[in-house]
Amino acid sequence: MPAAALSAPDAVALERLLAVHPRLVAVRPAGEVVPGLERDLILHAAPPQPWAEMSELLRGGMIGAALNEGLAATPEEAVRKAAAGEIRFAAAQDHASMAGGVGSITWSTPMMVIEDAASGRRAFHPVMEGLTGKALVLGMYEAEVLERLRWMREVLAPALESALQRIGGIDAHALMIEALRRGDELHNRNAAASSLAAELLAPGLAQAGLAAAEIERVFAFVRTNPQFFVAVSLAASRLACDAADGVPGSGLVTACGANGTDTGIRVSGLPGRWFTAPAEVPEGVFFPGFSAADAGRGCGDSLLIECYGLGGTLLAAAPALWPVVGADEARARQIYADAQQIALGEHADYRVPLLGGAAAPAGVDVRRVVASGLRPVIDIVLVHRELGRGAVGFGLTSPPLACFQQAVAALDAAAA
Amino acid sequence: MPAAALSAPDAVALERLLAVHPRLVAVRPAGEVVPGLERDLILHAAPPQPWAEMSELLRGGMIGAALNEGLAATPEEAVRKAAAGEIRFAAAQDHASMAGGVGSITWSTPMMVIEDAASGRRAFHPVMEGLTGKALVLGMYEAEVLERLRWMREVLAPALESALQRIGGIDAHALMIEALRRGDELHNRNAAASSLAAELLAPGLAQAGLAAAEIERVFAFVRTNPQFFVAVSLAASRLACDAADGVPGSGLVTACGANGTDTGIRVSGLPGRWFTAPAEVPEGVFFPGFSAADAGRGCGDSLLIECYGLGGTLLAAAPALWPVVGADEARARQIYADAQQIALGEHADYRVPLLGGAAAPAGVDVRRVVASGLRPVIDIVLVHRELGRGAVGFGLTSPPLACFQQAVAALDAAAA
Repeated sequence: MPAAALSAPDAVALERLLAVHPRLVAVRPAGEVVPGLERDLILHAAPPQPWAEMSELLRGGMIGAALNEGLAATPEEAVRKAAAGEIRFAAAQDHASMAGGVGSITWSTPMMVIEDAASGRRAFHPVMEGLTGKALVLGMYEAEVLERLRWMREVLAPALESALQRIGGIDAHALMIEALRRGDELHNRNAAASSLAAELLAPGLAQAGLAAAEIERVFAFVRTNPQFFVAVSLAASRLACDAADGVPGSGLVTACGANGTDTGIRVSGLPGRWFTAPAEVPEGVFFPGFSAADAGRGCGDSLLIECYGLGGTLLAAAPALWPVVGADEARARQIYADAQQIALGEHADYRVPLLGGAAAPAGVDVRRVVASGLRPVIDIVLVHRELGRGAVGFGLTSPPLACFQQAVAALDAAAA
Repeated sequence: MPAAALSAPDAVALERLLAVHPRLVAVRPAGEVVPGLERDLILHAAPPQPWAEMSELLRGGMIGAALNEGLAATPEEAVRKAAAGEIRFAAAQDHASMAGGVGSITWSTPMMVIEDAASGRRAFHPVMEGLTGKALVLGMYEAEVLERLRWMREVLAPALESALQRIGGIDAHALMIEALRRGDELHNRNAAASSLAAELLAPGLAQAGLAAAEIERVFAFVRTNPQFFVAVSLAASRLACDAADGVPGSGLVTACGANGTDTGIRVSGLPGRWFTAPAEVPEGVFFPGFSAADAGRGCGDSLLIECYGLGGTLLAAAPALWPVVGADEARARQIYADAQQIALGEHADYRVPLLGGAAAPAGVDVRRVVASGLRPVIDIVLVHRELGRGAVGFGLTSPPLACFQQAVAALDAAAA
């Protein structure tokens, strides 16, 4: 995109977005680091939604979070407290955080802490359980899920923290640049990025003072979790979008998520205000035994990463993901070309080898979306609409055009 | 390739090639494991060549090897002993081994030991120094090079061996399948494969009893050496080709290398016999300050990996390598299509996401090469023709057609 075409507010917002250089600096309990978190508060995927309006799937995630945190002893108690307002809810993206999938953040959730090197600004995502099998991030809360979360909290997270302090943190920016050269798009394919992170963490983990029996488990957890790194890439997008937020007049998208019922966005010029519409049911490729009838509406904060310029926007970087989401090279190239049309600019360092080293489009502009009718294309895990069924496939989706239209109307009204 | 078109001997050779399932099982001194190695013998890149005929570059590698092994105290002594036959030379590929670049194998060289799970057959490649900066594999033998080799021998190799025994070896076959999904072609791009290996080795290295000061160095060596894994991928190709060797009448290429003067191949039907021609000077992309006038003739056993079906044959798997070697998507697709024309079959598991999951061509057939005029296309590091200058770029090359023509004529003569 020619920078000359940018309005002054958009140019400022874009500059702030691009100036962020994310580093993974720590793993800490959410209560210590997440701004505005309280002991009775559960953060979920945006947009914000009261308990009464939540889908069954999101409610499942919230009940699991309450049990995991000890806010309730039984699902029934969790439901009662939630309905009574004794457990409260808010959108993770309004707290510098990201909740992927049906995920949740509570006081003791171990968080990846991503920091902008220059400003010291921070953003957060829970240490990732994984997206296969049973996981709280898929709305499941059986005993085995809660047991793994306990181990993650008590063993894995302190080990990661110790390793990070010993190695002086991880340059997430440099790591993501290389991962794009290794076939990741950094949303639903983080296999190479996770290996790169494991490789960097290894000497620190080796000296983290783990008992012999735990060394194998910690390394195995990271090695067998190809979405380990998504906690970092998603938080990096939150970090950059927070930096770009609050520039009066700018139409840069600074938040985007779906909560299983609605999809919502925020824009830089109107901070704190969500523009929502019913979430679309993603289309895609289903695991054996499942079909389109099983897919629920989109859920997760991860939709933001495409607005930042990674993920589905760079599907061309990840040929191994094409058949998984039902795309091919032509579709991947078209998604990239369309994304250029609605972006405010481009990233200097995030590049796609298959596209001759072309740069990642940066910063979705609500006005360009409305003018062109082109929307960000997001690759997304498909979660069964019924609680407890887990992932059923992968596909592509987009935020409803209505979100962007509302945002443009509101920007116009604010300027009038 | 339609299997029905294969001659019975070629079908047998191909079946043996494809049946090999390589595992990295140990790291041992060459003297313990390499068949036929002796204390005064130095193995170099094929084809075999007497000292008197060696290029300056290969001589440099041999002098360095003699110094490193303690066969000579000075370069002058090494030259004298080599000329007098007190130091002897042979082709690594004739000893179940691979010598990449200007590399060498002597009694104490730490070797990656690759084993076929079913047959127990083994092949070997030295633990890889790296291909940037100063290295014996580039024909350099300054004090810093020899000091690093000492550390590799005394610290790194025992640590790798300890780690491998603790983790029960590494399934190189599975690792390579995944690396092809992460943008490696496994010859001049092994970045993802090396990270995968590091990730698998890490829990073993963490428990290898290393002194604290060495932990960092070992992990850093592996992490900063994106060609760490080439020792495995090259040895895997040697292993499979050895398994396919010695089938009377088969035209399957079972060895291929260049020694800085000549390029040579062997075929399954005529084991032990080299068919040679003057090596071509590869064309390619030069590092700043270098030009085509600086490139020496091809040198290294690594040419074999393309005949096995990886490396340049699958350049389409590695978009990040295209600009490095001077190719683009169209060229990469053409190389793959041409390779299909001269292959005997295809690998079941080595696949290229960009090509819709198309399988790696397997087993170059000398008869198909001669009939079509198409030759294997090899991506290769360009080494300066003058000793001590090191790598000057990367490019593409092919074994001379004359090698294949000689082999076909000899097969015909043997059959007559």
